[in-house]
Amino acid sequence: MGSIFFAHSGGVTTTINATLSGIIDGYHKHQSSFSNLLVGENGIIGAINESLIDIKQYTPEELQSIYSQPGAAFGSCRFKLKDPNTQSAQFERILDVFKAHNIKYFIYNGGNDSQDTTLKLSTYFKKNHLDIHCMGIPKTIDNDLYGTDNCPGFGSAAKYLITSIMEAGVDLRSMSNSSTKVFILETMGRHTGWLAASTGLAKAPFGPHVILMPERKFNRSAFLKKVDQSVHRNGYCIISVAEGVKLHEDQLHSNGGVDAFGHQQLGGIAPHIASLIKDELDHKTHYAVADYLQRSARHLASGTDLEQAKALGKFAIESCLKKSFNEKMLAIKRVSDNPYQWDITSTPLSTVANEEKVIPDEFISECGMHITDACRQYLKPLIQGEQWLDYSDGCPNYSALEKKFVEEKCAPYVY
Amino acid sequence: MGSIFFAHSGGVTTTINATLSGIIDGYHKHQSSFSNLLVGENGIIGAINESLIDIKQYTPEELQSIYSQPGAAFGSCRFKLKDPNTQSAQFERILDVFKAHNIKYFIYNGGNDSQDTTLKLSTYFKKNHLDIHCMGIPKTIDNDLYGTDNCPGFGSAAKYLITSIMEAGVDLRSMSNSSTKVFILETMGRHTGWLAASTGLAKAPFGPHVILMPERKFNRSAFLKKVDQSVHRNGYCIISVAEGVKLHEDQLHSNGGVDAFGHQQLGGIAPHIASLIKDELDHKTHYAVADYLQRSARHLASGTDLEQAKALGKFAIESCLKKSFNEKMLAIKRVSDNPYQWDITSTPLSTVANEEKVIPDEFISECGMHITDACRQYLKPLIQGEQWLDYSDGCPNYSALEKKFVEEKCAPYVY
Repeated sequence: MGSIFFAHSGGVTTTINATLSGIIDGYHKHQSSFSNLLVGENGIIGAINESLIDIKQYTPEELQSIYSQPGAAFGSCRFKLKDPNTQSAQFERILDVFKAHNIKYFIYNGGNDSQDTTLKLSTYFKKNHLDIHCMGIPKTIDNDLYGTDNCPGFGSAAKYLITSIMEAGVDLRSMSNSSTKVFILETMGRHTGWLAASTGLAKAPFGPHVILMPERKFNRSAFLKKVDQSVHRNGYCIISVAEGVKLHEDQLHSNGGVDAFGHQQLGGIAPHIASLIKDELDHKTHYAVADYLQRSARHLASGTDLEQAKALGKFAIESCLKKSFNEKMLAIKRVSDNPYQWDITSTPLSTVANEEKVIPDEFISECGMHITDACRQYLKPLIQGEQWLDYSDGCPNYSALEKKFVEEKCAPYVY
Repeated sequence: MGSIFFAHSGGVTTTINATLSGIIDGYHKHQSSFSNLLVGENGIIGAINESLIDIKQYTPEELQSIYSQPGAAFGSCRFKLKDPNTQSAQFERILDVFKAHNIKYFIYNGGNDSQDTTLKLSTYFKKNHLDIHCMGIPKTIDNDLYGTDNCPGFGSAAKYLITSIMEAGVDLRSMSNSSTKVFILETMGRHTGWLAASTGLAKAPFGPHVILMPERKFNRSAFLKKVDQSVHRNGYCIISVAEGVKLHEDQLHSNGGVDAFGHQQLGGIAPHIASLIKDELDHKTHYAVADYLQRSARHLASGTDLEQAKALGKFAIESCLKKSFNEKMLAIKRVSDNPYQWDITSTPLSTVANEEKVIPDEFISECGMHITDACRQYLKPLIQGEQWLDYSDGCPNYSALEKKFVEEKCAPYVY
C-alpha cells in the first residue's frame, strides 16, 4: 500500500477546497487501500520542504469545514520547478521525500502551469524507474484549460460577476438620469475573456451592453460609438472588461509585477477605459475592480461548480485505486445541455500543459463586443444552484485550520 | 385628504427600496386617510417634471418585489435645487405640481444633501403659506448623518465589505507563501471612514491589519512600517482604505469628475497605495475597488438594516397621519447594545443638512490605523441577520418595474 500526495497549485478558486473535500471523502471510503493521505503545504513547495499535512489528525468536523471555505485550506503556490535536465536538485529532493513517505500517488489540482508541473514530475519519476501514479485535476477561474468542457472554479466566479454586474446595473439605472451614465466592471482573464463573457448572462436591463474580451482586437472608435449609443438609447451603459484587453497595440495594463512563471501581473484596465470615456464622450463613469473577490466569493458559489469540483476529487481517488488515468488530467465532459448532464473523462497532461483555450468564434457576436446565444447555452448550466453558508455574528463561518504535519523523515532542504 | 409625495434622493443603497416598501405598507394600512401615494421619478426631478408614479396602478406582487431589489425602483437623483431667494422658478414649479395633485405630505429619503433639499422646500412652502408636512428619512452607506445612531444602507454595505475582505483574506493567506503578500480593498467614504472602519469586524486571521480612514492624517512611514511588520509576522497584510484618504497633503484622489453638488468624484486610491507598497517594500500587491458593488449587493443585505429601513418608511406614514415630525428627519436611536434594541426618534432637518458625522476618536485605535472595541460594539448589531433572495437561472430575481405615471395636470416645465 502506498500513500497519496495531494496539493493545490496556482491561483485559488472558490471551490478548490471542494475538490480537497472530495479527495478526503474518497480516501475515507477506500482507506484500507492506501496508507496515508498527505496534503502538501503550499502546493509542490510542501513536497520540497517536506511539509506534509496528515489528514488523519483532523476531526470529522474539521474536515467537513473545508468544503465551505474559499481559498486553499492548506495553501497553494505559484512555483515553477526548474529544468530537470540541467538543474535536477528539486526533483531529486521530491523523489527522496516521496520515497521516505512511501508516496505512490501524486494528484495535483491546478491550471495549465500546474499541469505542466505534474507532467515534468511524471516524466522524471518514469526516467528514474519510480512507479508513481501522476494525475492532474483541473481548476481555474479562467476556464482556459484544453481537454475539459469547463474548469472547476469558473462557474462560481461567473455567478459572482453576473450577480455583481446586475446589482451595479440596477444601481446605475436608478441614478443615470442625473448622475453616473457608465459603469465598468473589470474581471480577471489574461489571454481569454471567459469571465468577462460570462457577465453576458446577466438579465436585461441590468446586463452589460458591451463586453471586451482579449479574443478581439480593441476597436477604439467602434467601442466609443457603442457606449455612446447605449447611453443615448438606454440612458446608461454597462461594460465588462477582461484585464487582459489591450487598449493600445500589444500593450497589456501591467501593474509592474511579474510572477514565478514570468507572466506580467495585470489589473487596472478599468480606470483607463473610464478615462477614455470621460475624455472622449464626457459621460460620468464609475468602475469596480473585482480582483480576488471574484475568485473567493464562497458565499455565492455555484451549485454545479461545487458538485463538479467535489466529484473530481472523489473520482481521482478511485482512479488511483484502479491505477487508471496515469499522466492524465481529469476533465468534465458535457453530455447534454438541456437537461444539463455531465460526466468525468480525462485528457493527456501533455495536451493541457501551458496551453490556453480561448473563446471560440461562434461564442462572440459579430460586433466583437458581446456574446452569442450559443455562448449563453454553454455558460448557463455552470452558474446554476445555490448552497447557503452558515453565518455567525453576521459573517460567514470561515476559519483557519491548524496545519498538522507528519513527522519529517528527511534532512532539511537547502535551497 | 391630501396625497403623499415620496422620493429617493442621492446615491442609492441596498435597502433604500425597503424604505419605499415600508412607505407602501404604511399607506395601504392607512389608505382611507390619504388620497394617493405618488413616488417621484428620479427624486425631486420627478416633482419638477411632474413624473409622478401612481402606486395604485401596481399589483400586490409587483409592489412586493420592490423590497428585494437593490437600487431605487423608481430612480433617485443627484440634483441641487437653486437658491429659492434668487432663482425661485424650480420652487414655484414644485408648488404648482403639488397643488395640482393635492400633495400635503413630502417625504424625502436621502443623505445630508437631500435633507438640505427637504429643509429648503419646507421653508419655501411655509413662506408661501402652504401647509405641506415635510419629513426626511435617513439613508446613506456612508453612515455620516448627524442625529441618528446609524444610517439605513450602511449596515448592508458594511456586511458586504466585511464578507468580501474576509474572502479575499482567505485567498491571500492561501497564496502568500509564494505569491501576493498584500491585498487592499478600497471602500467608499469621502470625508468619513465608517465603511473602511467596518471591515475591522472581519474575523481573524482574515480581517484587515491596517485600516486607513480620512479621520486620521496619512502617515507614510508609520503605514509602511505596519504593512511590512504584518508581512513579516503573518506572511501577508490585508488593508482596507476609504477612497477619501489623502496620501499627500490636502490632495484627494479625484478621478476628474464633479457632481451636481460640486463634490469631486473620488475612487482609485487603492492603485496608488499598491504602487507605494511595491516601490518601497517590494511586496507583490493586489487591490480591489468595490465601488457600486458595496452599495448594491442586495444578495448580502443585513437583516437589521432591512428591518430598520422598512420600519422608517412605515413610521413616516404614521407620522404624516399624526402630523408629527414636521421639518424633522426620522432617526434611529440605540436603546441598548446587548441585546441590541433600537427605536425611532427624530432630529431637526437643520441639524442634519450638509453636515457630516465623522468617526469619534474613541472608535479609532491609538495608532490611527485600526478600530477599538468600542467601535466593534457599535458596529456589530448593524450587520446581523441574513435574508436570502429568490434566484432563478442562477441569478437573483431582479427585475425592472414599468413606471406607471398619474396623468399630468400642469404644462410641461421649461428648464
